[in-house]
Amino acid sequence: MSGGDTDLVGDLLDGRYRALARAITRIENRSPGYRDLVAALHEHTGDAEVIGITGSPGAGKSTLVDKLAKAYRDEGLTVGVIAVDPSSPYTGGAVLGDRIRMASTTGDMDTFVRSMSARGQLGGLSTATGDAITAFDAFGIDRIIVETVGAGQNEVDIVRTADTVAVLVQPESGDDIQMLKAGILEIGDVFVVNKADMPGADRTVKQLSEMLEGRDNGEWTPEIVETVATSGEGLDALVETFADHRTYLESSGTLEAKARTRYAEEVRTLLREDAGRLLEGEIERRGGIEELVDRIVARETDPYTVADEIIEPLAECLAREEAEPSPR
Amino acid sequence: MSGGDTDLVGDLLDGRYRALARAITRIENRSPGYRDLVAALHEHTGDAEVIGITGSPGAGKSTLVDKLAKAYRDEGLTVGVIAVDPSSPYTGGAVLGDRIRMASTTGDMDTFVRSMSARGQLGGLSTATGDAITAFDAFGIDRIIVETVGAGQNEVDIVRTADTVAVLVQPESGDDIQMLKAGILEIGDVFVVNKADMPGADRTVKQLSEMLEGRDNGEWTPEIVETVATSGEGLDALVETFADHRTYLESSGTLEAKARTRYAEEVRTLLREDAGRLLEGEIERRGGIEELVDRIVARETDPYTVADEIIEPLAECLAREEAEPSPR
Repeated sequence: MSGGDTDLVGDLLDGRYRALARAITRIENRSPGYRDLVAALHEHTGDAEVIGITGSPGAGKSTLVDKLAKAYRDEGLTVGVIAVDPSSPYTGGAVLGDRIRMASTTGDMDTFVRSMSARGQLGGLSTATGDAITAFDAFGIDRIIVETVGAGQNEVDIVRTADTVAVLVQPESGDDIQMLKAGILEIGDVFVVNKADMPGADRTVKQLSEMLEGRDNGEWTPEIVETVATSGEGLDALVETFADHRTYLESSGTLEAKARTRYAEEVRTLLREDAGRLLEGEIERRGGIEELVDRIVARETDPYTVADEIIEPLAECLAREEAEPSPR
Repeated sequence: MSGGDTDLVGDLLDGRYRALARAITRIENRSPGYRDLVAALHEHTGDAEVIGITGSPGAGKSTLVDKLAKAYRDEGLTVGVIAVDPSSPYTGGAVLGDRIRMASTTGDMDTFVRSMSARGQLGGLSTATGDAITAFDAFGIDRIIVETVGAGQNEVDIVRTADTVAVLVQPESGDDIQMLKAGILEIGDVFVVNKADMPGADRTVKQLSEMLEGRDNGEWTPEIVETVATSGEGLDALVETFADHRTYLESSGTLEAKARTRYAEEVRTLLREDAGRLLEGEIERRGGIEELVDRIVARETDPYTVADEIIEPLAECLAREEAEPSPR
């Protein structure tokens, strides 16, 4: 790690906001040195509680997250919010510098809101979200809220970086039911029927109960909580439910099991990314992908043979290494 | 390749149905030798026209595909249908043997219908579909119809193995519009409003026209065709539109460009799969993933450092190989 990076880690651990902002920008951009940065922060993590909140646009996520942050702040806790929007493919650089901002509605100096968007592969976005959580955690944030917009597999991947997952549902919303079908139902620990003062809220609660019935989620039975985020109604019950879930996670050993699964997945994801880069190098050494495709189109070779020709030297190299390790 | 496999290739190229069925079963199961099999078939491909048909359940895909197959058969062409259902995670073996069946409604000996389902990773399903197309093509099938159920990214990946993509839309179906938003709109070359005798068909056509307006798809403007699959109404127009699209693909060079993109993607997908296996081997050499995770949980190391330690020997191995190739 360069001297500047050591300073960045030190400043972040000292609680300097600007260092946190710079660290997350580097993480999001995958700038040089971000790997060493996250690696250095890892040993300082493990104390934050991470809550994921997902739901369709318009369900009231932002308002709920604001109120939730305020509730935690009232308990004297520090709060970080990571707002992930996979559908927003920012590519710029300058705009990112100030994307840690204070939460506007609470006007609170100790709530950090950071938005992140899809850059490059979506798989990379859940890795980047995990790394941003690492930075928040090492910084000393007590509660980290990961807010994701939309639905589908990408959402599921991102929200799984959280210990507790809350799914926000709007009364009588066809969209939400679609989303629940799309795999979100399985990962929700808490279901929040927001705008519970709207007509149809009771029916939505009933539908949800029916969908959750018979769902085997180990020892935790998913809870349904009704809220009106705009007025703050139901917020206390929600905070309490999150605390209950945390207690369950810790006492059952599920918290550690989840962390272990995440770490294993993270190692494999990083390895895939690294291997991908190595393989692209090998493709280049063989004249580039276009030349290989020329030969496939001409039926001189085929995709499987090409792949074999590239991977075999690697496999042989490793086999030799294993038999007789080279001096390092 | 073993002697039995050479026979299988020879029998398939000779037009023996049972060899085709066995080849596709081996492809679907990723049974030993399937790679050599597909590799050997590749040089015999390139003559089939591949049409992808997607749409929500209930939109009438199966009926339309049956009628379409009949129309091609009436022209004296052979037809193969690959029905892909990613939501159906079969794991068995025996049930697969007879999943090439003759199309029931046409009662035609030269229409082959093969269903494939998700086994293992969904990414693998689009690769397997591509390999099944290779087998059909090498067998001498003139028109291959790939039918996919459902919506979303997996569908998009699968249907992209086709040269021409038709999206089936049901009048006044909210589900279908959702699906169109989910990325299917971009990949449709032909939009089929089926059940065009239902009320609301005109409105659906109008909505579709508006959604397609301003869509820049190169030289081809997506066509909307109205059909009533049950009665066969509109089938001639659909067949003609597919032929028009084929003419466009060939004359514009798009057909070759699409094939090149597919081959490049296929090489990369195969490399990722192979590299994944190599990396799992390296993880095992280091005591397995659980031991690595133990050290991460204990904060003795972190995911990035673990990944680096595994990938670096590979990178160094390749660098040495490049500097001074080993005798092969």
